[in-house]
Amino acid sequence: MANPTAAMLVIGDEILSGRTRDANMYHLAGKLTEAGIDLNEVRVVADDAPKIEAAVKALSVSYDHLFTSGGIGPTHDDITADCVAAAMGAKIGIRDDARAILQAHYDRQGMEINEARLRMARIPDGATLIDNPDSHAPGFTLKNVHVMAGVPAIFEAMVAGLLPTITGGDPVLSTTVRVTRGEGDIAGPLGKLAANHPNLSFGSYPFQKDGRYGANLVIRGSDQTQLDAAAARLKDIFGTDAT
Amino acid sequence: MANPTAAMLVIGDEILSGRTRDANMYHLAGKLTEAGIDLNEVRVVADDAPKIEAAVKALSVSYDHLFTSGGIGPTHDDITADCVAAAMGAKIGIRDDARAILQAHYDRQGMEINEARLRMARIPDGATLIDNPDSHAPGFTLKNVHVMAGVPAIFEAMVAGLLPTITGGDPVLSTTVRVTRGEGDIAGPLGKLAANHPNLSFGSYPFQKDGRYGANLVIRGSDQTQLDAAAARLKDIFGTDAT
Repeated sequence: MANPTAAMLVIGDEILSGRTRDANMYHLAGKLTEAGIDLNEVRVVADDAPKIEAAVKALSVSYDHLFTSGGIGPTHDDITADCVAAAMGAKIGIRDDARAILQAHYDRQGMEINEARLRMARIPDGATLIDNPDSHAPGFTLKNVHVMAGVPAIFEAMVAGLLPTITGGDPVLSTTVRVTRGEGDIAGPLGKLAANHPNLSFGSYPFQKDGRYGANLVIRGSDQTQLDAAAARLKDIFGTDAT
Repeated sequence: MANPTAAMLVIGDEILSGRTRDANMYHLAGKLTEAGIDLNEVRVVADDAPKIEAAVKALSVSYDHLFTSGGIGPTHDDITADCVAAAMGAKIGIRDDARAILQAHYDRQGMEINEARLRMARIPDGATLIDNPDSHAPGFTLKNVHVMAGVPAIFEAMVAGLLPTITGGDPVLSTTVRVTRGEGDIAGPLGKLAANHPNLSFGSYPFQKDGRYGANLVIRGSDQTQLDAAAARLKDIFGTDAT
């Protein structure tokens, strides 16, 4: 059976302006691969309601799962929850379960739960909460859309809680052969090998080191024996240039 | 006059599988902001022809410029040039100018220009070459689509050569006020300030440090005097918690 497919939507002006280097895409990509869920597409859009809604609609229809990152805090630019609700045709308001989590958190801190903080209890009808062990404002899953915070420590904690609840497929296995020849010398034999192994995927990732050209050849698939055989074949082909 | 708009398309399985952490998005985002070009959207797709073509079509129509990264080497998974040509309705083949650049490079290296390397001379009709001072295989600009390599050192060299040829707008200026209060306390006053300054943009980027909550409040706009006045107002509001 084919693995479930997924997309990610990163929401935030700060990524597009170059102010912040995104960390969540790299984290999620690795975790989904381990879980046997195929990440097929990522989009990054600004804190702009029409853009967010259009992306949620397109990606939630095209893939089994959509994971979002960013825009669920208490400030005026945190509009993700409302946009996801609108895109998915759900109502949204302050929900008692989310409010109770926040109330308990702020009571422990001796802080007041004001209007801004209550924005973080806005959860669409029918959504399941995603636990936030860090700062407590929950994420949520609405149908196949999983809405999480953008702060990396919180995003990672939410992913860790969420992923075991999602049914994955076979983890994608990979093996890498490093070849110290130019890609132009590698391309011919590699292409033939790829054509002969339709259920493995072969990628070539060039590098330059100390003025010499080389490439990491990455073979991906779900059967370790097949991977090992293909890697051995590459080493036969490239001899002492392959490690 | 409004700044030109842009999108970026990152092409590569290695990003989506979590094997490689993308570096080109962060680099391009910063350079476009300096050049006064507004990066509005980024997409990451796999080395898959229908996905690449659909993204190129959608993004080249929606924005003034589209910058792509990845998939222009000599191996079988390098299909970007052909996909861009197909998406834009251009013919593609080995072009004499690109072949001459490669031939000269391999002659200097005493290497043979084989079939795989000649793939890198496949350039769409009507495209302008983008110089590659590093490994010499050129990128190209076809209409409003700028096609560049994925290896970060080469991508950055191509961007450095390309951007001065593109007309930008006013660089976006920004100033940051660091406030050591929870976002829930910041949100109310910040939202009011934002509402009163429609031609500035206000973002709140929360952090936790040593167990305390805080946020970097970033004000963006094109007029330094307005930015300074808004930053001063934030410092008035948050007193000694603002720096």
